[in-house]
Amino acid sequence: MRHKLLILADDENKYRALIEEARLLNLELAMKPAPDVDIALGEPSRVKAALGSLPALAWVQSIWAGVEPLLDPALRRNYILTNARGVFGGLMSEYVIGYLLLHERRVLQKLEAQKSNHWEGSDTGTLRGKTIGLLGVGSIGLEVARTAKFFGMRVHGYTWSSESSPDVDRYFHPSESDRLPSLQDFANGLDYLVNILPNTNDTRKIVNADVLNALPAHALVMNVGRGPAVDESALIEALSRNKIAAAVLDVFEREPLPKDHPFWTTPNLLMTFHSAAPSLPEDITKLFIENYKSFDKGWPLKYQVDFERGY
Amino acid sequence: MRHKLLILADDENKYRALIEEARLLNLELAMKPAPDVDIALGEPSRVKAALGSLPALAWVQSIWAGVEPLLDPALRRNYILTNARGVFGGLMSEYVIGYLLLHERRVLQKLEAQKSNHWEGSDTGTLRGKTIGLLGVGSIGLEVARTAKFFGMRVHGYTWSSESSPDVDRYFHPSESDRLPSLQDFANGLDYLVNILPNTNDTRKIVNADVLNALPAHALVMNVGRGPAVDESALIEALSRNKIAAAVLDVFEREPLPKDHPFWTTPNLLMTFHSAAPSLPEDITKLFIENYKSFDKGWPLKYQVDFERGY
Repeated sequence: MRHKLLILADDENKYRALIEEARLLNLELAMKPAPDVDIALGEPSRVKAALGSLPALAWVQSIWAGVEPLLDPALRRNYILTNARGVFGGLMSEYVIGYLLLHERRVLQKLEAQKSNHWEGSDTGTLRGKTIGLLGVGSIGLEVARTAKFFGMRVHGYTWSSESSPDVDRYFHPSESDRLPSLQDFANGLDYLVNILPNTNDTRKIVNADVLNALPAHALVMNVGRGPAVDESALIEALSRNKIAAAVLDVFEREPLPKDHPFWTTPNLLMTFHSAAPSLPEDITKLFIENYKSFDKGWPLKYQVDFERGY
Repeated sequence: MRHKLLILADDENKYRALIEEARLLNLELAMKPAPDVDIALGEPSRVKAALGSLPALAWVQSIWAGVEPLLDPALRRNYILTNARGVFGGLMSEYVIGYLLLHERRVLQKLEAQKSNHWEGSDTGTLRGKTIGLLGVGSIGLEVARTAKFFGMRVHGYTWSSESSPDVDRYFHPSESDRLPSLQDFANGLDYLVNILPNTNDTRKIVNADVLNALPAHALVMNVGRGPAVDESALIEALSRNKIAAAVLDVFEREPLPKDHPFWTTPNLLMTFHSAAPSLPEDITKLFIENYKSFDKGWPLKYQVDFERGY
C-alpha cells in the first residue's frame, strides 16, 4: 500500500531532506494537506489545526513528547498517535546538570564581578554529595538519575510505578489515601527538586506550597516536565520570601509566558522558555523511520499515546 | 618523634578542626611560626613568606596543585614538598562541563531574553558528538576525559607521556624536532580546546596564534591549567577578530588580573578568577592525614614535587 506523509514542523526542510535520504518504501511526501495523506509528522498544535483537512489520517508521529493539543476530547481520535520518547534523556540531563552547575559554581556572580572589573576568586560549591529529588523517574528521569550518580549525587525518586533502578538510591511513593505526607517527606532534606512529570490530573500543582515549605532554604527547584505541575503563585511566594534559594523553569502554565506574568520579575528565578530538550530532527527522524517501517507492515508502533491517560 | 604542624591557609580554622578531630599520633599544632615546627600545611605563597622563620621545616604539604612560589631557585629546598593531587579531577570536570553547557545551551542569551521580557524559545546545542581536545591528560585530564565520554563527546589528548586511556579516542604527541605541526594537527577540527597543563618551560605559550588559527571558527578555548600556557595577546586577537567563538579562562599570566588588562573588555571571554577547582579542606585534610602517617614512620610521601621539573 502507498502512503502519503505530511510534515508539519518548523524544521520541515530538514525533516524532508532526512526522510528523502532514507528512501522509505511506499512513501510519498505531500507538500500540503490532501485527502490521501495518511501520515503526519509534526508539532501537535500544527497537526491539530490540520486535522479537518486530513480525512484519511491513520497515524500521527508527534515530534514532541507532550501532545496536549491532540488530547482535547472534542477532537477526533480515529488514528494512531505516537509521541517522541527515548531521545530526550541525554538532552534533559545536559540541561539539568548545566543549570545545577550554574547554581553551585556561582556562574552569574562571577559574571557580575567580571562586568565590574572585580577579581572574584571566592570558592564555589560542588554537585558531589548533594541530594537530588526527581519527581518522575520514567525514561528521562532515569537518564537524569544516571547522570546525577556520575557526578556523585544521592538520588531520590518519587513515582507512582514500582520499578526500581540502581541509579535511584531511595524511592518515594504516593500513599493510597493522601499523596501529600509522602511528598513532603520526599521534599525534606533535598538540595535540588527536579520535576520531570507529564501533565496529568495526578500531577497538577504537585509542587505546591506544602512541598516548597518542606524544602530546605538552600534548595533549588527545577521544572522541566510540564508547567501545570508547579503551583506558580506558591513558587513566587517561596522565592520572594527566600523560603528556597532559586528556581529554574523551562515550562509554564501558559506558553509563551504572558508579558505581565510576575515570573518576569521574581527574584532568583531563571527561565529557559521551553528549550530544555529540543527535538533534534536527526533524533526524531530516526524514530519516525523505525515506526514507519512497522506502520507499512501493519505492525504495532513504538510510543503509542493512550488518549485517555494522556501519555 | 614529636612533630609540630603550622597551618598557613585562609581556611585555617577548618583545617585545624579537621586535623584535631583525626587525633594524629605524635602531632602538635602550632599557632604561629616557631623554631621547632617541622611540618607546614598551606598555600605555597604563605609558606614561602614563612620559610625564613621555620628553620626545622622538613615537609611542606601544599593545599594547591600549583607550587610555583616555592620553586624560586633562590629559596631553600632542603625539605620535602608535596602538592595536592588526585582531588581536583571531579571539581575540574564539573567546571569544564558546566561552562561547555553554558556555551552550548546558550544560557547567557536566555538570561538576556528574560531581562528584556522576551520569550526566547529557540533551540540550543548539545555536547553529544562534539570533539574536545585536552592539552594535558594527567590525573585531572583523565577525569575530564571520562566525564566528556559520559556526555557522548569524542576525546583527543595531547601529551608528552605515552600512557593510554580508554577514555581518550586519539592521542597526539609533540614531534622530536618541533612540537608545532603536531599541535596544529591536534587543534584542527576541535570543537573545544581545554588546557590542563601545569606551568613548565615546555608549556609556556603553547596555546599561541598558530594553534588558535588552526581551530575552527565555532571553537571554544578554555584554560584551567596555568595562565602562562596561553599567549594572552594572541587570544585577544583571536576573540576580537572572531577567529574563535569564545574563551573561558580560570587562570592568567598575572593573578589577580591587573585592573587595566584588556581581558576585562575582550568580547566573548568569560573569566572565573582561579576558582575552577577549589581546595576543599575535607579533601586536602584526607590527603594530609595519609601523608602524615607515612611521614611519621619515615616512609615516602605521596605526590612529592620535583623542584627542578616543577611538578
